[in-house]
Amino acid sequence: MGRAYGFFYLFQAVWRFMQLLFAESILFWRFKIMRIELVPRGAGELVYEIRNIVNVAEKLQKHGVKINWENIGDPIAKGEHVPGWMKEIVANAVMEDSTWGYCHTRGVLATREFICEMTNRRGGAQITPDDIIFFNGLGDAIAKIYGCLRTGARVLMPSPCYTTHTMAEIYHAQSAPSLFRLKPEDRWYPDIDEMRNYVRYNPNIGAIMIINPDNPTGMVYKREMLEQIVEVARQNNLFIIADEVYTNIVYNGETVVPLCDVIGDVPAISLKGISKELPWPGSRCGWIEVYNSDKDENFRKYVNLILSGKMNEVCSTTLPQTVFPTIMQHPEYGNYLAERISRYEQMSNITYDYLSKLPSLQVNRTNGAFYMAVAFKDGLLNHSQTVPIENREVRELVNGLINQPGVTPDKRFVYQILAATGICVVPLSSFSTSLQGFRVTLLEKDEHECRRIYSTLAEKIEEYLAS
Amino acid sequence: MGRAYGFFYLFQAVWRFMQLLFAESILFWRFKIMRIELVPRGAGELVYEIRNIVNVAEKLQKHGVKINWENIGDPIAKGEHVPGWMKEIVANAVMEDSTWGYCHTRGVLATREFICEMTNRRGGAQITPDDIIFFNGLGDAIAKIYGCLRTGARVLMPSPCYTTHTMAEIYHAQSAPSLFRLKPEDRWYPDIDEMRNYVRYNPNIGAIMIINPDNPTGMVYKREMLEQIVEVARQNNLFIIADEVYTNIVYNGETVVPLCDVIGDVPAISLKGISKELPWPGSRCGWIEVYNSDKDENFRKYVNLILSGKMNEVCSTTLPQTVFPTIMQHPEYGNYLAERISRYEQMSNITYDYLSKLPSLQVNRTNGAFYMAVAFKDGLLNHSQTVPIENREVRELVNGLINQPGVTPDKRFVYQILAATGICVVPLSSFSTSLQGFRVTLLEKDEHECRRIYSTLAEKIEEYLAS
Amino acid sequence: MGRAYGFFYLFQAVWRFMQLLFAESILFWRFKIMRIELVPRGAGELVYEIRNIVNVAEKLQKHGVKINWENIGDPIAKGEHVPGWMKEIVANAVMEDSTWGYCHTRGVLATREFICEMTNRRGGAQITPDDIIFFNGLGDAIAKIYGCLRTGARVLMPSPCYTTHTMAEIYHAQSAPSLFRLKPEDRWYPDIDEMRNYVRYNPNIGAIMIINPDNPTGMVYKREMLEQIVEVARQNNLFIIADEVYTNIVYNGETVVPLCDVIGDVPAISLKGISKELPWPGSRCGWIEVYNSDKDENFRKYVNLILSGKMNEVCSTTLPQTVFPTIMQHPEYGNYLAERISRYEQMSNITYDYLSKLPSLQVNRTNGAFYMAVAFKDGLLNHSQTVPIENREVRELVNGLINQPGVTPDKRFVYQILAATGICVVPLSSFSTSLQGFRVTLLEKDEHECRRIYSTLAEKIEEYLAS
Amino acid sequence: MGRAYGFFYLFQAVWRFMQLLFAESILFWRFKIMRIELVPRGAGELVYEIRNIVNVAEKLQKHGVKINWENIGDPIAKGEHVPGWMKEIVANAVMEDSTWGYCHTRGVLATREFICEMTNRRGGAQITPDDIIFFNGLGDAIAKIYGCLRTGARVLMPSPCYTTHTMAEIYHAQSAPSLFRLKPEDRWYPDIDEMRNYVRYNPNIGAIMIINPDNPTGMVYKREMLEQIVEVARQNNLFIIADEVYTNIVYNGETVVPLCDVIGDVPAISLKGISKELPWPGSRCGWIEVYNSDKDENFRKYVNLILSGKMNEVCSTTLPQTVFPTIMQHPEYGNYLAERISRYEQMSNITYDYLSKLPSLQVNRTNGAFYMAVAFKDGLLNHSQTVPIENREVRELVNGLINQPGVTPDKRFVYQILAATGICVVPLSSFSTSLQGFRVTLLEKDEHECRRIYSTLAEKIEEYLAS
Repeated sequence: MGRAYGFFYLFQAVWRFMQLLFAESILFWRFKIMRIELVPRGAGELVYEIRNIVNVAEKLQKHGVKINWENIGDPIAKGEHVPGWMKEIVANAVMEDSTWGYCHTRGVLATREFICEMTNRRGGAQITPDDIIFFNGLGDAIAKIYGCLRTGARVLMPSPCYTTHTMAEIYHAQSAPSLFRLKPEDRWYPDIDEMRNYVRYNPNIGAIMIINPDNPTGMVYKREMLEQIVEVARQNNLFIIADEVYTNIVYNGETVVPLCDVIGDVPAISLKGISKELPWPGSRCGWIEVYNSDKDENFRKYVNLILSGKMNEVCSTTLPQTVFPTIMQHPEYGNYLAERISRYEQMSNITYDYLSKLPSLQVNRTNGAFYMAVAFKDGLLNHSQTVPIENREVRELVNGLINQPGVTPDKRFVYQILAATGICVVPLSSFSTSLQGFRVTLLEKDEHECRRIYSTLAEKIEEYLAS
Repeated sequence: MGRAYGFFYLFQAVWRFMQLLFAESILFWRFKIMRIELVPRGAGELVYEIRNIVNVAEKLQKHGVKINWENIGDPIAKGEHVPGWMKEIVANAVMEDSTWGYCHTRGVLATREFICEMTNRRGGAQITPDDIIFFNGLGDAIAKIYGCLRTGARVLMPSPCYTTHTMAEIYHAQSAPSLFRLKPEDRWYPDIDEMRNYVRYNPNIGAIMIINPDNPTGMVYKREMLEQIVEVARQNNLFIIADEVYTNIVYNGETVVPLCDVIGDVPAISLKGISKELPWPGSRCGWIEVYNSDKDENFRKYVNLILSGKMNEVCSTTLPQTVFPTIMQHPEYGNYLAERISRYEQMSNITYDYLSKLPSLQVNRTNGAFYMAVAFKDGLLNHSQTVPIENREVRELVNGLINQPGVTPDKRFVYQILAATGICVVPLSSFSTSLQGFRVTLLEKDEHECRRIYSTLAEKIEEYLAS
Repeated sequence: MGRAYGFFYLFQAVWRFMQLLFAESILFWRFKIMRIELVPRGAGELVYEIRNIVNVAEKLQKHGVKINWENIGDPIAKGEHVPGWMKEIVANAVMEDSTWGYCHTRGVLATREFICEMTNRRGGAQITPDDIIFFNGLGDAIAKIYGCLRTGARVLMPSPCYTTHTMAEIYHAQSAPSLFRLKPEDRWYPDIDEMRNYVRYNPNIGAIMIINPDNPTGMVYKREMLEQIVEVARQNNLFIIADEVYTNIVYNGETVVPLCDVIGDVPAISLKGISKELPWPGSRCGWIEVYNSDKDENFRKYVNLILSGKMNEVCSTTLPQTVFPTIMQHPEYGNYLAERISRYEQMSNITYDYLSKLPSLQVNRTNGAFYMAVAFKDGLLNHSQTVPIENREVRELVNGLINQPGVTPDKRFVYQILAATGICVVPLSSFSTSLQGFRVTLLEKDEHECRRIYSTLAEKIEEYLAS
Repeated sequence: MGRAYGFFYLFQAVWRFMQLLFAESILFWRFKIMRIELVPRGAGELVYEIRNIVNVAEKLQKHGVKINWENIGDPIAKGEHVPGWMKEIVANAVMEDSTWGYCHTRGVLATREFICEMTNRRGGAQITPDDIIFFNGLGDAIAKIYGCLRTGARVLMPSPCYTTHTMAEIYHAQSAPSLFRLKPEDRWYPDIDEMRNYVRYNPNIGAIMIINPDNPTGMVYKREMLEQIVEVARQNNLFIIADEVYTNIVYNGETVVPLCDVIGDVPAISLKGISKELPWPGSRCGWIEVYNSDKDENFRKYVNLILSGKMNEVCSTTLPQTVFPTIMQHPEYGNYLAERISRYEQMSNITYDYLSKLPSLQVNRTNGAFYMAVAFKDGLLNHSQTVPIENREVRELVNGLINQPGVTPDKRFVYQILAATGICVVPLSSFSTSLQGFRVTLLEKDEHECRRIYSTLAEKIEEYLAS
């Protein structure tokens, strides 16, 4: 008798299988729908979550609370003023017709020649203008760099890690990334032994990615670390991706060693840009420098595929590329950058001073970029801690948000701190790490406000942990 | 201010994205789980549904109702007796050691030579033993034939269609299939104009599949139809897949034209087997004949890939292959088959007589195989019709099952008919068609029981439609 | 004995299979290589071909031949002057710090409000600022629109078609696209019957794409055609993608009906930008308007996925977005645009007059955009026609290039015309059509030069066909 | 001027891109072809290589050389006689109609109950008949087990490894597998530290696979090793796949600990079959036992997906399942199996004695199954060693085959040994290892012949290495 069922099962199976694959096309009588599913299962849900933090902030502002956006990595938005001489260079360039047209797919030739010269005169990796491709900001570059990889070819990246890299890696491979640890107990330096193990035991890893100076930790790689990483790549036939967008923002007496100094004959891609440095993030202008593209046929095809992708969009923004050499060579540029960097140094150390006093936190002095990543010591955060939130409407909103499945302890912390103090920071667990903590930016321009924010934060942390 | 949100959004994004992709790995505190998702989203749900029909039948039997399994395509299960001489051939073969060992990956050479000779002497397509590959039944052959196609290469198939083909096509392409209509208003003959249009307007179609004689309709293709289909393939550089497992089961004065008679120089794969004919479905023994593999390099690689798949499983079942020529050449075989076919003819016509009297149904006389597909006229079935179900427990169970979203009208009909009469048929909509109806088998051995079943069914249909 | 081989085969198989999959990792002793393949088989080859046309042009220029770049769609590169008032608006904006920072992921709010108002006051589709997303040019928008679709969801597009759309569709689906015909014999109007057939017979089609005014044909859709296309989408639950970047460039007494006027309640995406109109292609600034995103859950998720992609790159260029409303509302803008359009009209008609005299060509008057597509009548081009190329070095180079497998007849034609006359046009077959011909742009600013170019071209065509 | 090229590039790009993707459809005028590519790039090439070894052997036989097929894993083919009582059981079963029909999709219920009882009475993992699924041999089971995994979910497997597992893993993931080392220097025992590292550093690993007793090494896992492996799985939420087809073939005083004894609450799949034991490889009859399917939702869905795949093929072979309990319970079965095993033990030790004397080899005594894997010590094989091959025709054929790129040193060795001695072994590097060596089977029935073969082989190895 048992065998009789087999047949019925089978016939039901195809119907059920199609339902599972094309669910909505069967429910056609319920509401109007596209005839086929447009996106993969689970995709397209991201945006709905985003209204939450906005709602909290808006409710706070409605009740007169000032918000301190310590989550923002845009110097302009944080009140940086672009110097007049720089604006004039750009305004003058606007008067030239040529800055309005398309440029070469790789970017404006004169600018690429200028960059070549900067890189080549260091005496390390030697490149030609054809080794440079401009993108509409590093977000665009990152999307194409990871997007052009074969699904099975993975990039090993640091943890914590700037999310744009992790997202692009996950999206290209549709699979969880491999991450080597930056050590909170040792100034966020990379765990190179762990890196070696990932490379050795995961045959799908084809590249190593580093950010130097690092986002979100502000750590600056030592020359010997970079040499060791290059050696891992050389021995295992990997290529290296180095996000060097903060390469000129370094302080506390440290120096950044650019990848081109140590890369030798290993294929690599360096990402650079003007968003953080001029700063002109709204220009969407960054570029890649390709080192040793001629050393490996496989790598050369990969770079060509990246170029083909850009070619299908014709080219990147012309105006910022055109003015870049003039700005960089302007006599004021050096002083201007030095002044800004010294401010980041000051704010970094103020922030460090306040937070490092708390024994509950793992805090490291930053030496570059303008972010600080702070981890709670293991096990200190839990799912029941609270701080008082004065406004009832805000309190109820926040309670609704944090009492949901899947909310990490540090997201819970961040929402409550925002609601209680108006200080907006980012959960550290958002940066592809299981560490619980938060990231702040060092872009506050006013020293007193900076002291107020971090003394408040330190106080609230103690209150929160003690609750 | 708006720009401030961007950053927070981004950091939330990667977390949320990973949640969506790897949902359960985040809910680790709830229950023990595999560390990564093992199956694609939506997969693995199929089996749960299957208990339903079993539960209904078991409850009926518990209350003493006899079940008529008119859904079963296994002659043995329906009471067919295997003749003694055939059993003896097999039992004798078992005494030879060689029938216990592996055979050649393609199959037992002598048997392949025997099949070649059968095909070649018809004078159409000429093949060698290397053009034949044995499989563990046609289900295995079908899984490999579709599974070896590139995702983007699609097979056009009839509607209604035997589900194993449709499932394999959907599974290989992860996308809904293209289906040409078999015309219920014209003896289930294929709509070849529609076939031409699908081929013309869908550049992904690389092959046409037919079943001759057809399952689930019992239709037998006319020679000129086959010639037209071959011509469509020739003009568009397609190959043909022909499921000819019922090739020798034909009646009502019709003849089956095998594909090899009309294929000319078009690449094609014919599927044949012994499950239905000897009948020995439990042997899992079927084969493919490849026509014109030398005519096209692309097709040849495809056939090689199919062979590689089989090679990885070493070979198919040895015993049934070994005895096949002896059975086919046995002096009793012809009479034996003729007797069975005449019985199918009789049952087919009895079934036809009862059902064709109902003006609500589209019924066609079958000429081959042992299935009849019956469609309700358009719009006659709805979501509220009922027949009385005596037993309260069964009634409640069935009501629970049919009052769920996604239940098609003919599934609703089938469940109720089973519960009310003990007659188990299959919803026609399970066969990749939007037609609503049911499929029955013609394997009933007892004429009176057959008359009882179909007079009951006819009566209940009228009652159901009038409700 | 045969069965003995099976085993050996099997063991060889895995080795050979890995060789086929990971060829280079086995040849490790030959040259240094990445340890895994970085790109899919066949990818990354594109760029090598590109040097060819450059080499021909450079050799010609070295010998003093002037090149007429009739392949270029950049008005600036063709000598258009940006008016002083427009430059001043931008230069003034540069003086504001806010134009240097990031903007909202969707784009500058005030600009999105301005666009909403423009669209909404037409009285058709009504949108909010949240229905607008800015991109770094339409190339970026197109990459994301197609890239966010499920592999199996296909977009039906016109043939001939602007390549960026076709490339993005092919790339997302890794499969040949479905294309409906624009009719060369009927003013390049769309074959809507064919469109209906593609929709009907290809279940994977989920959207229809149109370009209005069209690139490369200059055709402007009639209102009733758009209504029919919308109706096809409505009846089949498709969405529409309309590339309307040339929406304000129309002449010869025609009017462009924007999609928002006729879309009704059908989900759709309109692409617009400033590259062609201000013209400011170097700004990389375009946007999408989403119509009826609330009408369908599936479509809404898709739009959210597109937004997530942009979010991962933070935002698009701020400066051009900021100035857009000011430029559009400037009192000079209307006259300025009208003057340019009347010039395109003049050049279009001159070009038409010269080419339409040749009975060998299918030429249609253009009514919008600034391209003209010209097809040779069927069968007139072959693989042996030539025109004399004076310079020996250039002749040999070109002969080497055109005598290769896979060179289409019109590519052969285009290379020779360039070498013989210095006039650079684009093969029509590059635009996803089997038609053989060429595309020219109508951006020549000098009437006499325009007459010289097209009288020369007409003459050479006759000579080429007669050879 | 540079920007002018961009446009031409772009238009060429789409053409070239389509050529790369769909190469043959463009060369349509050259030879008749399928209109779309049917198989992925690189697939379908496997079979062509296979003729080589056959050609060598046939040429040898033509010249009167006897071939010793020491590559064959089929006892029947190597001359094993099936005992009369076993044949009679099967022949009697053939007389029952029910053995000719389909059985339950999972397999014959009585047989599954019998197997349950065997497993459950050991007192370890407890299963029900629903935890057993029959397949058409383990090749079929393996294809489905790996084929039902999500592309990104990988199975860690031993190296060297039976190829059917490796092929299925590579095919499902389209990527190189992760392999833990079996240690040639320590009786082929697994390197469990390495296993732990692979699990830790490769987040895509979702399962560990072992073969016990092992093919190709004959190693039998110690209980504590199995316990450690289960612990690795438990701690990392992995499931285990254990190929236990040789579970009853063990000697030299060893015992096999079946997985069910040590698995505890960890989800697992055990593969068992009758091919090697009865032996009845031609029956294509094997099964899986699923342990702890109720412990994890994700694992349960996976098992359901495997069942759905089998359901689409209706069921597996009925006859061998039906007789299995009768054979296993027959009073002669124990003695019969013991006699065979003692013969394997004898041959194993003879083989060991001859080969272990050579200091150039790493040889381990086998304790189970009937294979021995022998590795050359590191660096001893090279690309220029030879042995004299008498027959000129054979010599030239072999020289042609081994002097090709990509031929491993041990494949070179194997071809020459075959040509020089008629002894056919398999290159060890075919078993997913970088070790160079060979695998032999222990199925020789005649002691003297066995001694002759291995003394010859030992002699030739020394000659080969000294050349």
